[in-house]
Amino acid sequence: MGFLLASSALLVLYAAVNLFGLYYGDDWGGLYESITGSVALFGRVGGGIYTKAADVGADLVGKVERNIPEDDPRNPAVIADNVGDNVGDISGMGSDLFGSYAEPSCAALFVASICSFGAEHDLTAMMYPLLISAVGLLVCAITTVVATDVTEVKESDEVGPALKRQILISTVLMTAGVAAVTFFVLPPSFTLFDFGNDKHVKNWHLFICVSAGLWAGLVIGYVTEYFTSNAYGPVQAVARSCRTGAATNVIFGLAVGYKSVIVPILAIAAAIYASFRLAAMYGIALEALGMLSTIAKGLAIDAYGPISDNAGGIAEMAGMPRRVRERTDALDAAGNTTAAIGKGFAIGSAALVSLALFGAYVSRAGITAVDVLIPCVFVGLLVGAMLPYWFSAMTMRSVGSAALRMVEEVRRQFDTIPGLAEGLAVPDYATCVRISTDASLKKMMAPGALVMLSPLVAGTLFGVETLAGLLAGALVSGVQVAISASNSGGAWDNAKKPPCRRRRARSLGPQGSEAHKAAVIGDTIGDPLKDTSGPSLNILIKLMAVESLVFAPFFAAHGGIIFDHL
Amino acid sequence: MGFLLASSALLVLYAAVNLFGLYYGDDWGGLYESITGSVALFGRVGGGIYTKAADVGADLVGKVERNIPEDDPRNPAVIADNVGDNVGDISGMGSDLFGSYAEPSCAALFVASICSFGAEHDLTAMMYPLLISAVGLLVCAITTVVATDVTEVKESDEVGPALKRQILISTVLMTAGVAAVTFFVLPPSFTLFDFGNDKHVKNWHLFICVSAGLWAGLVIGYVTEYFTSNAYGPVQAVARSCRTGAATNVIFGLAVGYKSVIVPILAIAAAIYASFRLAAMYGIALEALGMLSTIAKGLAIDAYGPISDNAGGIAEMAGMPRRVRERTDALDAAGNTTAAIGKGFAIGSAALVSLALFGAYVSRAGITAVDVLIPCVFVGLLVGAMLPYWFSAMTMRSVGSAALRMVEEVRRQFDTIPGLAEGLAVPDYATCVRISTDASLKKMMAPGALVMLSPLVAGTLFGVETLAGLLAGALVSGVQVAISASNSGGAWDNAKKPPCRRRRARSLGPQGSEAHKAAVIGDTIGDPLKDTSGPSLNILIKLMAVESLVFAPFFAAHGGIIFDHL
Repeated sequence: MGFLLASSALLVLYAAVNLFGLYYGDDWGGLYESITGSVALFGRVGGGIYTKAADVGADLVGKVERNIPEDDPRNPAVIADNVGDNVGDISGMGSDLFGSYAEPSCAALFVASICSFGAEHDLTAMMYPLLISAVGLLVCAITTVVATDVTEVKESDEVGPALKRQILISTVLMTAGVAAVTFFVLPPSFTLFDFGNDKHVKNWHLFICVSAGLWAGLVIGYVTEYFTSNAYGPVQAVARSCRTGAATNVIFGLAVGYKSVIVPILAIAAAIYASFRLAAMYGIALEALGMLSTIAKGLAIDAYGPISDNAGGIAEMAGMPRRVRERTDALDAAGNTTAAIGKGFAIGSAALVSLALFGAYVSRAGITAVDVLIPCVFVGLLVGAMLPYWFSAMTMRSVGSAALRMVEEVRRQFDTIPGLAEGLAVPDYATCVRISTDASLKKMMAPGALVMLSPLVAGTLFGVETLAGLLAGALVSGVQVAISASNSGGAWDNAKKPPCRRRRARSLGPQGSEAHKAAVIGDTIGDPLKDTSGPSLNILIKLMAVESLVFAPFFAAHGGIIFDHL
Repeated sequence: MGFLLASSALLVLYAAVNLFGLYYGDDWGGLYESITGSVALFGRVGGGIYTKAADVGADLVGKVERNIPEDDPRNPAVIADNVGDNVGDISGMGSDLFGSYAEPSCAALFVASICSFGAEHDLTAMMYPLLISAVGLLVCAITTVVATDVTEVKESDEVGPALKRQILISTVLMTAGVAAVTFFVLPPSFTLFDFGNDKHVKNWHLFICVSAGLWAGLVIGYVTEYFTSNAYGPVQAVARSCRTGAATNVIFGLAVGYKSVIVPILAIAAAIYASFRLAAMYGIALEALGMLSTIAKGLAIDAYGPISDNAGGIAEMAGMPRRVRERTDALDAAGNTTAAIGKGFAIGSAALVSLALFGAYVSRAGITAVDVLIPCVFVGLLVGAMLPYWFSAMTMRSVGSAALRMVEEVRRQFDTIPGLAEGLAVPDYATCVRISTDASLKKMMAPGALVMLSPLVAGTLFGVETLAGLLAGALVSGVQVAISASNSGGAWDNAKKPPCRRRRARSLGPQGSEAHKAAVIGDTIGDPLKDTSGPSLNILIKLMAVESLVFAPFFAAHGGIIFDHL
């Protein structure tokens, strides 16, 4: 899937660049992004609501009330849960990363078209961003061969380390690949456009930009693994806190999520500083591209989570032996961590992409400085920092109320279908699937409207500078909320899984014990955080930036109706 | 208490202004603030850890494990819990608001000293901020008389509306008072200092600044009440969600907290825009002062919460009849809401105060623009937005681990003291008090160090502009985290209290039911959020700004060691 997505994105971009020939730098980039962004909005937000309504609903009645295992075929909501994993974590993640992947390329092309090698129509150098992506595909192919043929994974305990090794190998190889492309393709020095000033850049500067993104991605991946894998201290502390009940579990899980923000933000900040300083917004776009250059690998790692989750579900439903289920459980625990790593990549790259798009917006809107000391900018910043909370409140309530409807339906089926609890009758899976589908389509309207209308309202009524503040505020605040939500959720999910079979008794006790129930409560709370509201924030910050970029000339000409008259 | 605090702050300020005579505008303001800020740091962070370690510990063993009522004298941690309410919610809140109250006065005096009526040594006009505060005291005295003598409260149901009416009356009276002072004391027009430019201001502009703060405070108070009182929809929805378990309770409570951020932020943003535009940073300082001018009232409303909470505790411990306890319960529910309103005021004013101090810092550091498009500023903004999460992770973990120690001690006493569970023996209250005291003193070191060192590190290593970004980021992100944490906690706390006696059976069922247990879990999670990490963020954003202001000349001369060499 990773290869398919990355290659198709690259192909479309290559075709587009050739088709539009000399007109590069025009509106097509923005339009292209608006379309992929809207698809991602549906996938992420709608898909997130879909899967988590089913998941939370299934857990609440099945695990907590009826005390039947996860993914039991007697539970009417299991099919909807498994379908939802596909909608949210596979297609949602795919369209999200497809957007993140294509957007920095467009942003880089946009900047390149107005910098020196663009003006001289040196198409080879213009193609630099696409070449980086092409090298990334090659590197991922080599890494895959190493993973499947050189070091084979035999035990389920080895899955985690193997995936980590994969990330490291692809990063090292990619760094070499980027160096080769940079020094072979680019002229030794050239001029970039930097908010009205010219900026002289050397080719090794661009190498540093791409590498900074690449290695910041590695840091995010490793830190995420540390905070969400049950092999390390944080998740084990969360698991231990289950012994004093659900409340301490939730407190510790929230704290782990908050704490997991620190290092990724410092890594992103350091990388941004380097790229920004060396090559302005072109550097940021290249950095985002660098982080996503190994996307084929990243998507594979991310898709690993829902696939092993569904495999476990099918094993349970098909009544396969305990041994099979134990094996899929171990794979699922590794999958939770890899899904969290994938989300970390997605969030980090979304931040970089939004920043690059923000830079492009500022250029297009003709703003020379986004000065926090100007009232309208500061107000935009403050309100922008509030938007992720508004958005999260909407998506979490959507999951909550859809889950309540699912609970009622599951309870109704248990009460009215005779023999269902004993496994003698077949539940009505279709109604549960329909409830999830309806809920996801209806409940994504409001968050979608918030994303689409905020830039329009800010730009039209309050002007381009307020909108610039709004974008910056949403970006710096949204990243934190997204990372902490994803990692809290990942930590809770794995806190309920024993680190290895030997320690099971000591750590949480058997299913049905008080500690295990506390762990299930944490996991259920984490579900909407890590799979709906957290990752949806990527879409919020990216789509708002894209929309602002598209409408920038309009806002610059006609925007600011209210502030102009005050 | 409110009057005492407000008057003493005013007296100290008046004395200081007279003593320092012509030297106003020098360092004393910053030093004065550093001292009150440090006291507030102890009160808020240490006090918060103190009370919540005891509260969470007492709840976990008492209510959840042993199934004995809240505040039962058999529980060894009850005394520590009651002492803690005083330390955190009374002295912590007091020192926090004392700082918030004095700081904008100092900031306003600082700006006034370098603007036109300062340079001409027109001491009457210089005293304008202090006069506003004096009028506030008078207004609060009148409002109190209205509350105690004109409309007497007879039923516990009337407490909430009475407190709300108090806020409204004091706001209306204060608006009239401010108008009188403004037009009587100030010259019709004068010049202010605005980041290197002169700004011409009319006296009615300043009236608008003070009123904007006053009415924004009213909006924050009313919105907070709506989201945390069990008389309205949000808390009732949270209470209903308890029927499907603790997980949905937590999800809905988090969503309510997130949602409660929207209107206060919009109100603060509108007020900031008006004041900033009309009178630059002097306007912001006056706005903060306006919001806090009725502080005597606000503190009384806030102190109402812990007082009625402790009264309920004492009634329970003294074995008073059920009727008394029911009455204190109703008072306590109103108290939870008023405490949340008090926190809303504290957070809103902290944001305004930090902004005013931020403005003063920028002036002192000689920065002319805090442009987000400059790499070092953007990086500061991003990292600054992360600090509230780091800080919250620390304070929440502190509460969590101190609560775990408390749980162990309480369990130990139940296991080793014979006859304790039956109420025949006296528990060892002193050990629990000592555990809370030790924990609060030890565990506040790390969060304190984070607050004190961040500006020093940023300023010294990365320079004044990065520090400016850091302050702005921490401000816009911290406000959201603080408001949402406080209101989620308030909503959970009241979701477990029945809206009125008639509806008790339908809403949650009796103590000990599954729904009630789910509500207690939500309440326990909310405790550290609303009483430790949330309100502590006020201190984070204020103290960082004060410290930056004090060291601004040093940073401007010697700071930025690292970025200067890149």
